[in-house]
Amino acid sequence: MAKIFNTQTKIGVLGGGQLGRMLHQSAINLNLDLRMMDPAANAPCASLIKRFTVGDLENYDDVYNFGRECDLLTIEIEKVNIEALKKLQSEGVKVFPQPEIIEIIQDKRVQKQFYQDNDIPTAPFVLTENLEELKQHKEKLPAVHKVGKGGYDGRGVQMIRSEADIEKGFDAPALLENLIPFKKELAVIVARNESGEIDAFPPVEMVFHPEHNLVEYLLSPAVISKEQKEKAIRVAKDVIEKLGMVGILAVEMFLTKDDEILVNEVAPRPHNSGHQSIEGNFTSQYDQHLRAILDLPLGNTDIKIASAMVNLLGEDGYTGEAQYEGMQEIMRINGVHVHLYGKATTKPFRKMGHITITDPNLESLRIKIHQVKEMIKVKA
Amino acid sequence: MAKIFNTQTKIGVLGGGQLGRMLHQSAINLNLDLRMMDPAANAPCASLIKRFTVGDLENYDDVYNFGRECDLLTIEIEKVNIEALKKLQSEGVKVFPQPEIIEIIQDKRVQKQFYQDNDIPTAPFVLTENLEELKQHKEKLPAVHKVGKGGYDGRGVQMIRSEADIEKGFDAPALLENLIPFKKELAVIVARNESGEIDAFPPVEMVFHPEHNLVEYLLSPAVISKEQKEKAIRVAKDVIEKLGMVGILAVEMFLTKDDEILVNEVAPRPHNSGHQSIEGNFTSQYDQHLRAILDLPLGNTDIKIASAMVNLLGEDGYTGEAQYEGMQEIMRINGVHVHLYGKATTKPFRKMGHITITDPNLESLRIKIHQVKEMIKVKA
Repeated sequence: MAKIFNTQTKIGVLGGGQLGRMLHQSAINLNLDLRMMDPAANAPCASLIKRFTVGDLENYDDVYNFGRECDLLTIEIEKVNIEALKKLQSEGVKVFPQPEIIEIIQDKRVQKQFYQDNDIPTAPFVLTENLEELKQHKEKLPAVHKVGKGGYDGRGVQMIRSEADIEKGFDAPALLENLIPFKKELAVIVARNESGEIDAFPPVEMVFHPEHNLVEYLLSPAVISKEQKEKAIRVAKDVIEKLGMVGILAVEMFLTKDDEILVNEVAPRPHNSGHQSIEGNFTSQYDQHLRAILDLPLGNTDIKIASAMVNLLGEDGYTGEAQYEGMQEIMRINGVHVHLYGKATTKPFRKMGHITITDPNLESLRIKIHQVKEMIKVKA
Repeated sequence: MAKIFNTQTKIGVLGGGQLGRMLHQSAINLNLDLRMMDPAANAPCASLIKRFTVGDLENYDDVYNFGRECDLLTIEIEKVNIEALKKLQSEGVKVFPQPEIIEIIQDKRVQKQFYQDNDIPTAPFVLTENLEELKQHKEKLPAVHKVGKGGYDGRGVQMIRSEADIEKGFDAPALLENLIPFKKELAVIVARNESGEIDAFPPVEMVFHPEHNLVEYLLSPAVISKEQKEKAIRVAKDVIEKLGMVGILAVEMFLTKDDEILVNEVAPRPHNSGHQSIEGNFTSQYDQHLRAILDLPLGNTDIKIASAMVNLLGEDGYTGEAQYEGMQEIMRINGVHVHLYGKATTKPFRKMGHITITDPNLESLRIKIHQVKEMIKVKA
């Protein structure tokens, strides 16, 4: 490759939240010129990025006008105006991930259909157009009802355990998915650059609280067999290859009781399940995303050290200016890495930051995770 | 400790070069509000820091006016106006490292005297006021002549091998230091927070080219015995404790043929010899500096993975807009981490960036170092 490395490419990022912050930290290493647009004037990146534009990511004109000034556009959230991106692409702006792929992923119904059409293992499902149609699928219950468009961070997903729950379903285009009894929930971040090179990070595992049935923390690497690991990576590579996507793709998966891997859903951008790669892997997901969209060689995804990631959520019952209780105490623990997202106000369960803990010993890592979760509280 | 962690402290940094860039990357993790002053409007941090002031770091008014808006001041270069810092300190602004300590370090003669007065091992020396005085110390030759004030990055240091070289000496207050036959040149970065907690990073080693007698790369950890390592750390801790300094201090040392540790010189700030800590250690020197000046608990300095650091210098014979040849090639090598400093123009031997290489295997690490040095060139 006789290419000259060019740090002058004008890279636009749609979205200026916490993922944008960490992408920016990586971009500084390559002296890349990131500009960002976000609807919130006080978004996490607003104070960091000199060329920060306030604009509506779903508005054609806002996205088009922002993108016109860029050589390359990427996203840190997938709720963006696709038509503007297609127009920009037709005018020579590189858009990675490609608009057609964001469009597939934006609608969970289309996404599921894509898996089915492309022999990508996923839970069986039926499409429902409204509540009336949902009622005709009583035989599938218990099942999960997912709205096609607009769901985000747990919203737009409803467990329908029995007939009595049907009224909680969505009276809008949605899908009803079989409830999968799974052993583990895994995620694999996979990257593909413009030249077609593909590489995946080792799978990570969402560890659930034994009683509350909520994700407690993320563990890297996932504690699974070599065969399970290889299968998970194979599936993730298959998804990005069949999509033909450029950039990074977070593939969330279920490892079923029968050791099958089923794709749950994907995100075509840096993802919550890859934060620990900053400290835990040779290349971070943010580095890898930049390498992929700039058509640089992909970086080594190997794990440097085992790690866990705990989301730092606003404490229930507190709304207002964020105060971090217990910060000094957790910073005394070896291997604790604090990432605050620069959000001035906290509210219940708002993602205010995350804590990565690195430790080569899994037992002491687990002890530290519980210490950190006990000690740190975001209050107001 | 019942302290509330406060991200609102207004932190001013004197200097906005490459060290400031990496300090800024660390500061983002704690959502700290850094503002910077540098004489160059196109300094490496100028495009990154929203509150960036152009000002003369050695001018009283510029430093004072910048510092007045801050709660806490720190430095990324030690050539700063001390009187303004003392005034600010007297008015309640925290200044770390403390002005009195920067003052000692600014003048190599005072620095050496401090070592002598405090039983810190250092090479024997005599003070010279001018060239005339230098001529009276012929019996000490070969020796090294170092100017007291204003030397930087190799300037202000002159080898005086024999009488014939005396005219190359400094006709200004300087010191003449015995030439020490050393086995290795080491550096230890040591931190002290306001509460007096002290911790040191494992020693690193400057590896010299076997023929050219120039530093070729930095190796972490240094390949020395446990006793040598402990001695180096003991000396570094002794220096920071006797200075009573808050912040991080890079202590450059000689390991003599007789296994003595002699302090060469120190820098009271993040330093070139600590760059590899970003990827190689649990805590980076930048994280540690912030922890120290904010009186947070010091982080774990252990090595996560062995690493080497190669400075990326402007190629001899090229001046102008920087072009990075071989970037794609080095990015294919596992464990290569590129840090560009955002300098638009290159000139011969200008520090344009650095490359850290992480690899648990020392042999393959050395091979990669040589590959990287061969492949990457900064031209114009």
